[in-house]
Amino acid sequence: MAQVAAGGDVEQESLQSSAMSFRFQIEARDGAARAGRFSTPHGEVQTPVFMPVGTLGTVKGVPQDTLEELGVQILLNNTYHLYLRPGVEMIRQFGGVQKFMAWDHPILTDSGGFQVFSLSDLRKVTEEGVAFRSHLDGSSHFFSPESAIAAEIGLGADIIMAFDECTEHPAEYARTEDSMEMTLRWAARSKKYFEEHRQEVPWFRERAEQTQTLFGIVQGGMFPDLRRESAQRTVELDFPGYAIGGLSVGEPRPMTYEMVSNVIRFLPEDKPRYLMGVGTPEELVQYVAQGVDMMDCVLPTRAARHGLLFTSQGRLTIKNARFAADESPLDPNCGCKVCQRYSRAYLRHLYAANELLAQTLNTVHNLAYYLDTMRRVRQAILLGEFAKSLSGVQPPHLSVP
Amino acid sequence: MAQVAAGGDVEQESLQSSAMSFRFQIEARDGAARAGRFSTPHGEVQTPVFMPVGTLGTVKGVPQDTLEELGVQILLNNTYHLYLRPGVEMIRQFGGVQKFMAWDHPILTDSGGFQVFSLSDLRKVTEEGVAFRSHLDGSSHFFSPESAIAAEIGLGADIIMAFDECTEHPAEYARTEDSMEMTLRWAARSKKYFEEHRQEVPWFRERAEQTQTLFGIVQGGMFPDLRRESAQRTVELDFPGYAIGGLSVGEPRPMTYEMVSNVIRFLPEDKPRYLMGVGTPEELVQYVAQGVDMMDCVLPTRAARHGLLFTSQGRLTIKNARFAADESPLDPNCGCKVCQRYSRAYLRHLYAANELLAQTLNTVHNLAYYLDTMRRVRQAILLGEFAKSLSGVQPPHLSVP
Repeated sequence: MAQVAAGGDVEQESLQSSAMSFRFQIEARDGAARAGRFSTPHGEVQTPVFMPVGTLGTVKGVPQDTLEELGVQILLNNTYHLYLRPGVEMIRQFGGVQKFMAWDHPILTDSGGFQVFSLSDLRKVTEEGVAFRSHLDGSSHFFSPESAIAAEIGLGADIIMAFDECTEHPAEYARTEDSMEMTLRWAARSKKYFEEHRQEVPWFRERAEQTQTLFGIVQGGMFPDLRRESAQRTVELDFPGYAIGGLSVGEPRPMTYEMVSNVIRFLPEDKPRYLMGVGTPEELVQYVAQGVDMMDCVLPTRAARHGLLFTSQGRLTIKNARFAADESPLDPNCGCKVCQRYSRAYLRHLYAANELLAQTLNTVHNLAYYLDTMRRVRQAILLGEFAKSLSGVQPPHLSVP
Repeated sequence: MAQVAAGGDVEQESLQSSAMSFRFQIEARDGAARAGRFSTPHGEVQTPVFMPVGTLGTVKGVPQDTLEELGVQILLNNTYHLYLRPGVEMIRQFGGVQKFMAWDHPILTDSGGFQVFSLSDLRKVTEEGVAFRSHLDGSSHFFSPESAIAAEIGLGADIIMAFDECTEHPAEYARTEDSMEMTLRWAARSKKYFEEHRQEVPWFRERAEQTQTLFGIVQGGMFPDLRRESAQRTVELDFPGYAIGGLSVGEPRPMTYEMVSNVIRFLPEDKPRYLMGVGTPEELVQYVAQGVDMMDCVLPTRAARHGLLFTSQGRLTIKNARFAADESPLDPNCGCKVCQRYSRAYLRHLYAANELLAQTLNTVHNLAYYLDTMRRVRQAILLGEFAKSLSGVQPPHLSVP
């Protein structure tokens, strides 16, 4: 049964100090799942929400008006990439990344931590921060919690992430604990720098002195007790929202699920919970059922560019010869403009001929499928029909007990 | 002064035998320029018209709904490319290329002749036709006038082109004359095959027994007397429209202009004149002034993909560093959705970062610029203000007399 918020006393709000820059309300619950909304200086977001990845200030191949038509509410940009190209100062002078990319809606930036760990060469981690070389030209750079937050303030996303170390997988217990401890110290430094500099966001005056919102990130690798400790101590630092990081880094899916399950109970009910870097449409539903409010993933966009499409009838590899003469739409149950107009045969032809349009149309469909999934999930929570719709659906299991 | 058609007796119409499949009306004249319209089984086209090139059944990087928003009236598809991929039979089974690419508007296909000459390997030309190898996999193929027209009938474009030999440049007089003579014989064979098989177009029944329309192509290289002879003898074969082919093949621009000037007076007033494969926006205006009604060119789309953009303030290479922080639109006088939304700096960033969206947005703008140019030209002709707007504008001159 959904427990619908019926008044201010039932609403759970998180009011920030700086001019109501961020407010999270839960509208309904259904089991552990929640339907809510949060407001940011660039607009409101209904949760649970999937955030498409627009690494360099663009969701690859999709114009911004098409993202609006799709109902995209909030995009993720990568600080590491924008820091390298076109540079933070450029975007600051534009008045922030929303203006730069002509997207007058909410944006979230990661801290650069994950990207530095996954993309850059010759990185060297010390207590102070991370020295790394650009994957583009080998040039030397350094991110500390302070400089990463400074970059995120300059970019001006609505929600920004604390600078963390994404612990590699697999990692030993001691190594994971040390890494988690450093992430906690970096979280405190991130917060301190943010509190002292939050008014430097490029749109501060223009947006009625609202500021960005800084989320903390829980680490702890694949050890439940470290996850718990990381969650509890990150919450003690008091952020307006919490992310679960360091998952989807190569571990088996049931382990991801178990780690989320372990950690989410230690995150406050009245703050949004953001699970970073997951997953398939089915996984998204499972994580919402655990109480996750926000997710991002490159999967729908990257898979689309490789011809892997998500449909109500399962996944489909469009380059397959069996679609060569198939006049039916990609997904007969999808209302997106790709499925409403084009045939599988045409999409297969575009992909086989390596045509640019293949990447655009495939991406539009996969995003539509993800966003439709999230809208259906949200509606089911509001109607109190979500938890029971999952009965009989098993979460992934660990193959080892 | 424009001479506006005021009634049926002034209108110049070309009615075809087969159920009004093609009808060309001239609405106004201004100097040698004409504003008109023609109807096809998939809709009407207002002339003068620029036809974007959609080689493989897609204008590279631009979804069909965006082409509609841009006001594209008719697309060009390449027979050679579609014959190789996905194949004529596939498209025939779909009911024609309009259905295949989900473009319920007019389409024109070239005959494959130019593509065979410019792209394929190891071609061997005989009186019978052209043996060639695919540029994709080296496989052997043969186009005769009959088989090329059969392919064009199977693809089902509204307007199809006779199979011709595009004479190389430079070419000696004797060689050019022989080539022109063969193109004339091929034109007769193309027409004969078309007349005997026109009812085999895939949408014949569905479109009230309308058929395609076959245009003839004038050749004759860079020799005015051969151009004249080619025109006169092609007109004797009696086509509902005439193309000027074999230009834009490497000759200097003033020579192109002179050849058009030489040949156009021998093409009938009451039939559409299609100049193949030109040109810049300024050239388009000049050719309209000579009495050309239809043009196609890869320039706006190909240049866009290389970052070369046409604007009311001149050409612009978007990768240039001087645009890196430029907040102004690409073209302040352009109403296209790219100029209405994005900055030069953002477009420069996308191009520099090799982002897919650069190619889409650049192409959308260049097409908008071309189509706007043609709409302005047409309006000026209708208002009788076209010819005088050109006074003082000099056509290109031959550097050698």
